[in-house]
Parts: sequence; structure tokens; C-alpha cells
Amino acid sequence: MSATPTYGNLTNQGASTNIAWHHASVDRAARAEQRGHRSTILWFTGLSGAGKSTLANAVNQALFERGLATYVLDGDNVRHGLCKDLGFSDADREENIRRIGEVAKLFLDAGVIVLTAFVSPFRADRDKARALVENGDFIEIFCSADLSVCEQRDTKGLYAKARAGEIKEFTGISSPYEAPERPELSVDTGASDLEACVNQVVRALIDQGIIPSQA
Amino acid sequence: MSATPTYGNLTNQGASTNIAWHHASVDRAARAEQRGHRSTILWFTGLSGAGKSTLANAVNQALFERGLATYVLDGDNVRHGLCKDLGFSDADREENIRRIGEVAKLFLDAGVIVLTAFVSPFRADRDKARALVENGDFIEIFCSADLSVCEQRDTKGLYAKARAGEIKEFTGISSPYEAPERPELSVDTGASDLEACVNQVVRALIDQGIIPSQA
Repeated sequence: MSATPTYGNLTNQGASTNIAWHHASVDRAARAEQRGHRSTILWFTGLSGAGKSTLANAVNQALFERGLATYVLDGDNVRHGLCKDLGFSDADREENIRRIGEVAKLFLDAGVIVLTAFVSPFRADRDKARALVENGDFIEIFCSADLSVCEQRDTKGLYAKARAGEIKEFTGISSPYEAPERPELSVDTGASDLEACVNQVVRALIDQGIIPSQA
Repeated sequence: MSATPTYGNLTNQGASTNIAWHHASVDRAARAEQRGHRSTILWFTGLSGAGKSTLANAVNQALFERGLATYVLDGDNVRHGLCKDLGFSDADREENIRRIGEVAKLFLDAGVIVLTAFVSPFRADRDKARALVENGDFIEIFCSADLSVCEQRDTKGLYAKARAGEIKEFTGISSPYEAPERPELSVDTGASDLEACVNQVVRALIDQGIIPSQA
């Protein structure tokens, strides 16, 4: 064992190869330049059954086919992992959205276009997630299918259970959904077909200079 | 508003462009094929001052220069964000490592080589993080600089404070560090220079078929 800590020193002086290795030298700008696209958070919000996860995954697929770095955070990969200690009380819902916001920020920093697909019913919680990042890095996408459409679909049978009182505090039935007042994008997932919705999101990303117009 | 939920239906039937958009269709394998490298978790562990974060960031830089998708999780971007509600009690340290393991798993799923740089002193906590993923997706890297070297460096002045009793339960001084028994890699961050340590990690990734031998 050397008494002189050469290891630590080499990061701050010495040959040019080592100077290049300063702390956290790979930042968002460097990744954007290498990949040819910026990162952003696409925050999908809407009622259960509004098509958030379907749309997020379809947009993810479309962006992947353009060769872009993307990732979807949704109930499947968050509620059973990072947030498996949380229930559905108001405090736990708030903490759930807080963690998702923080993880989305990490993906943003990693140069990845991250798509979050959670009901996220409360305006204050969504605004906290927005406040974690710079202006322009948070694109709130309101999936506007209304309650009657969502309840008619009832893809997971949750509305029926909520109406029967088997699920407490179900958003839209026994717990409020606070629609965004000024979302960056509003997508009519009640009436439009999926392809049109995907194209609307992709077009917005192109128009805002986040992704190139050509693949 | 259409009474027929055309939106939901189109994901599961219809034109081939829509069939392709099934749920979570972009998986790790698809990303690995597109990017030309596999994802993995590089879990750096060792005493404070052992050079975990320096090495992780230098490896990150080297992999970035090869055009690979990478990201470093360390105290800078985790303790003040996702885990800012946690202190340093045993329970909070355990929850801290649990969340880092879950977030690392998300990056792994996103096709990113994720490097975690935390003391992570307890074997049981590291083994829990390892158990979250498949065999071979977790590469434990022991940064083996010993206490005397780390304390002599004392890059953050923490050892002096711990010796003075100003920091309680400081790993190596007043709280144990449980060295890995069978780490995938052991790097002598006490005596080797940084470039040699970086090369050792990169070589291991090539040897294990995670990244290609050429940039």
C-alpha cells in the first residue's frame, strides 16, 4: 500500500487523459450532443382507463424506432419496486408522486426522455414534480378521456369495484381528479385513435426542438 | 366524444402499425440490440474516501467516450433528491440502499449501464440490491483502499470530525464496514492509479460480453 494517495491526486493533475476525468464530467448537454436529442419529462396524467400507459408506451415505441433514448415509468415498474412500501392514503400518494418526480429527474439528467404514466390526480403533487426541474423540462400531457368513457371501458374492472364500494378513494368516483389547468399538451384519448394521439405528442417534441424532425 | 372506445381497441387489433404498439414492447433486449451493448449494474462499495465516486465517474466518462448509455448514482444526485427524507439511522441507511437498488433496476431495464457509488457498508443490504435483478446483472466492485489510506486522504474532512466525535456512527470509525466476501471485482483504489483502475473495470465489462471490445 502506497503511503502517498496517488489515486486521488491523479484526478486533478497529471496527464491530459486524467484531467478529462474530472467529477461528473458527462452532463446532460454532452449526452444530448452525442445522442442528437434533448431529454425531457413527459408527464401523462388522467383518469384510470384514460389511456395514459397505452399512450406512453406507444410514444415510447415510436421514439425508440427513431433511435432515441427513452423510458416509461408506470405502475408496473414503480409500484411493485421503488414504491412498494407505499399504500393509497393521501400521504402515501403524495410520497409516491414525489419519488416518481425525483426518479424522472435522474433519467432527465441521464439524457433519457422519460415518460411517466400515473393518475397523479392532485395538481399540487404534479406541480411539485414540475418544480424539481428547469422550466421547459416538464411536459404535462393531459389524457382527457372523461369519466363516462373511462368507466365504460373499465379495462381493469376497477370502476365496477369502486362503484360497489370495494375500492375506497378511487379517483373519479370517491376521490377527486384535478385536471391540469394549463397542460403543455392535451390529448383527446377519449375520441381520437391511438395513432393520432402518438403523432400529436411526437409532433410537439419536434416543434419544441427536443427531438429532430427526421429519425 | 365517441361512445365507442376506439382508442383502447386500436392497441390490440387493427392495422399492423398498431399491433406493433403493444404494451411495454421496448424491452432490454431491444435496447441492447439497438445500442450495441448490454446494460448492467456496477455497484461500487468501500469506505468513505476509498475513491468510489471518483472511479465511478471516471469509468462513466470512459464508457461515454465509447458511445455507451451510462449513468452514475451517487450521494450528489440521490441524497438531496429521492432520499432526502432519510437520515443515517440503521433503518434509514437500509431504506436508502433499497431505493438505490430499485432505481438501479429501472436504469438496467432502460438499457443503461448504471454505476452506483455509495459506502453501502452492510453486506445484507448489498445482497438485497443484488437479489432484485437477474444473476449476472449486478457487478459488485470493491474499492479496497483501507482505513489508513482513506483517513490519511480525508478528502472531505469527515474522518477528523468522526474522530472528534462530531459525526456519530461513521463507517470505519464508529460503525462497521463489511467488506464483500466474493465481489465480482476488487479494485485496489489505495495503491493503483486511477487510469489503471478504470482500465480494470472496462476490461471486465468487455470480458463479460457486456460492452464491445471496440468503441
